[in-house]
Amino acid sequence: MHSLEDFRKQVEKSLKEFSFNDHPRELYDPIYYMLDMGGKRIRPAMVLAACEMFGGDYKEALPAALAIEVFHNFTLVHDDIMDQAPLRRGKETVYQKWNTPVAILVGDTMLSLAYDQLIQVKEGKLPEIIGLFNKTSIEVCEGQQMDMNFETADQVTIDEYLEMIRLKTAVLLAASLKIGAAIGGADAGNKDRIYKFGEAIGLAFQLKDDYLDVFGKQELFGKQASGDIVTNKKTYLFLKALELSATEDRQKLKELYKLDLNDNMEKIKTVRGIFEKYEIDRRTMALIQQYHDEAIRLLVEIGVPDDKKQILHSIAGQIVERNF
Amino acid sequence: MHSLEDFRKQVEKSLKEFSFNDHPRELYDPIYYMLDMGGKRIRPAMVLAACEMFGGDYKEALPAALAIEVFHNFTLVHDDIMDQAPLRRGKETVYQKWNTPVAILVGDTMLSLAYDQLIQVKEGKLPEIIGLFNKTSIEVCEGQQMDMNFETADQVTIDEYLEMIRLKTAVLLAASLKIGAAIGGADAGNKDRIYKFGEAIGLAFQLKDDYLDVFGKQELFGKQASGDIVTNKKTYLFLKALELSATEDRQKLKELYKLDLNDNMEKIKTVRGIFEKYEIDRRTMALIQQYHDEAIRLLVEIGVPDDKKQILHSIAGQIVERNF
Repeated sequence: MHSLEDFRKQVEKSLKEFSFNDHPRELYDPIYYMLDMGGKRIRPAMVLAACEMFGGDYKEALPAALAIEVFHNFTLVHDDIMDQAPLRRGKETVYQKWNTPVAILVGDTMLSLAYDQLIQVKEGKLPEIIGLFNKTSIEVCEGQQMDMNFETADQVTIDEYLEMIRLKTAVLLAASLKIGAAIGGADAGNKDRIYKFGEAIGLAFQLKDDYLDVFGKQELFGKQASGDIVTNKKTYLFLKALELSATEDRQKLKELYKLDLNDNMEKIKTVRGIFEKYEIDRRTMALIQQYHDEAIRLLVEIGVPDDKKQILHSIAGQIVERNF
Repeated sequence: MHSLEDFRKQVEKSLKEFSFNDHPRELYDPIYYMLDMGGKRIRPAMVLAACEMFGGDYKEALPAALAIEVFHNFTLVHDDIMDQAPLRRGKETVYQKWNTPVAILVGDTMLSLAYDQLIQVKEGKLPEIIGLFNKTSIEVCEGQQMDMNFETADQVTIDEYLEMIRLKTAVLLAASLKIGAAIGGADAGNKDRIYKFGEAIGLAFQLKDDYLDVFGKQELFGKQASGDIVTNKKTYLFLKALELSATEDRQKLKELYKLDLNDNMEKIKTVRGIFEKYEIDRRTMALIQQYHDEAIRLLVEIGVPDDKKQILHSIAGQIVERNF
């Protein structure tokens, strides 16, 4: 049995050894740069963990794990162009360090490299796994488009927001687990359960991200303090506050979320004040807990011995408890 | 037996019937727009033709044909962003009509939609066909990157240029034919021959494009007259002229290819003059003929009755003879 840390290290090692034709350099240097940038490698580690959980040899799942990580990095490269983000993990983003045409092409190439890893799974499992990967890739794009739509939308419902983060964030975690499970030999029922487990912890993860942006210890989080408030992002916290607040506070929130300021101190303070008045912090944590509990319920139903479920159990707990 | 026209119509029909989840509309409207824009559908028609040539039922190759056409359109959507092209086939390009983030995401989604069509091929043929598709997709990106590199490169050799157009243009035609052949049941030798046939006619096609840009009847060609000269594109014609010309003419050409003018009449005239002086038109047509002859030689070697080869024979001929 391996630990999450073992799997992360294994992914890091495979990424270092990951080789492909790398000419022309102008295309492949940014790919190496991106894959060397680090990250928690949580998605590919989930592929390996799910494979081993069902009695498979995790080594057999390594190409699929690599595919998931390369795919994830493809989305980051393209998202950074769309969001005009200058930095990622403290380093220049690809489009910023090189340029937009190169970043577009780098992403396109990474998506095909991901598929090229994926086809190394056993032939009998290929249609199922590639089919799920396609579906996931399309859904991630749909989620990103919804996210962009929300920037200019007059009204966004909480259901729409949850659907957006499900597509943009949760389905990739869910697919990582299901692909690992499929390689490990899980049956249809368990594959379905682990997928839904992944969706639930993915939703909890993103909601915790939203929560920490406003109520986290910013120095640990390593991001701009309350960046979501600064950029007027319609997160769960904002939408829930709109739903619950009295007319005056609602108007105030709506006005504040039209501003584009240089100094955001006062704005952040006022928004936090309104959020606290309507207990948005407590309510958000309650929803996170609800998704966590749903995830644990699904995990319990999976028919393998409890000790095999330890990594997923601990991941689910960490998502709720993490402070950064 | 079907004609090329039959196959084109069949592709057009399949594209019309091609259905997928289309929410959010902001993502899928541009996909419908792009697929409705028309085009010769030559690549997907080649998939069907190659399948039937080896005794397969062309209907079985329809999803793969669709995959190739959707893939081709994905490359156009992203290339238009990179090239800042305002128009395609007389209509606004996707990034121009919507915006760059939408166009990036539309392309990404189309690439995944292409894979989603491709997996409908028979299970036993899936690894081979997806593997070839991956390789092709990566090579097309490499070709596009080389093309962008050449814009700012001091020196480009003719070999490098031919390798660039092989990757950017020829391999997709070659892969279309090989995928169709694989579905139709061709053996390894014939798959190899038809792939090389596709590369050869792809190279001939692009060189004819370069030729017509300078020496074609512009009103028929429907593009900006001598656009390659206006934009200082280092085509085969330019590179061959550099190789053959006397010092004075070479210097002149190099200087002209640094200019960014509003009125290009004089520049075009001078460049054409130098090209004609060194018989670049004749030499380019000779190289096109050479690739054509190589293609026909490969076609002859393919072990199926001659009447089955009619479509590919006629395609090869048309590429050399076309005036637009």
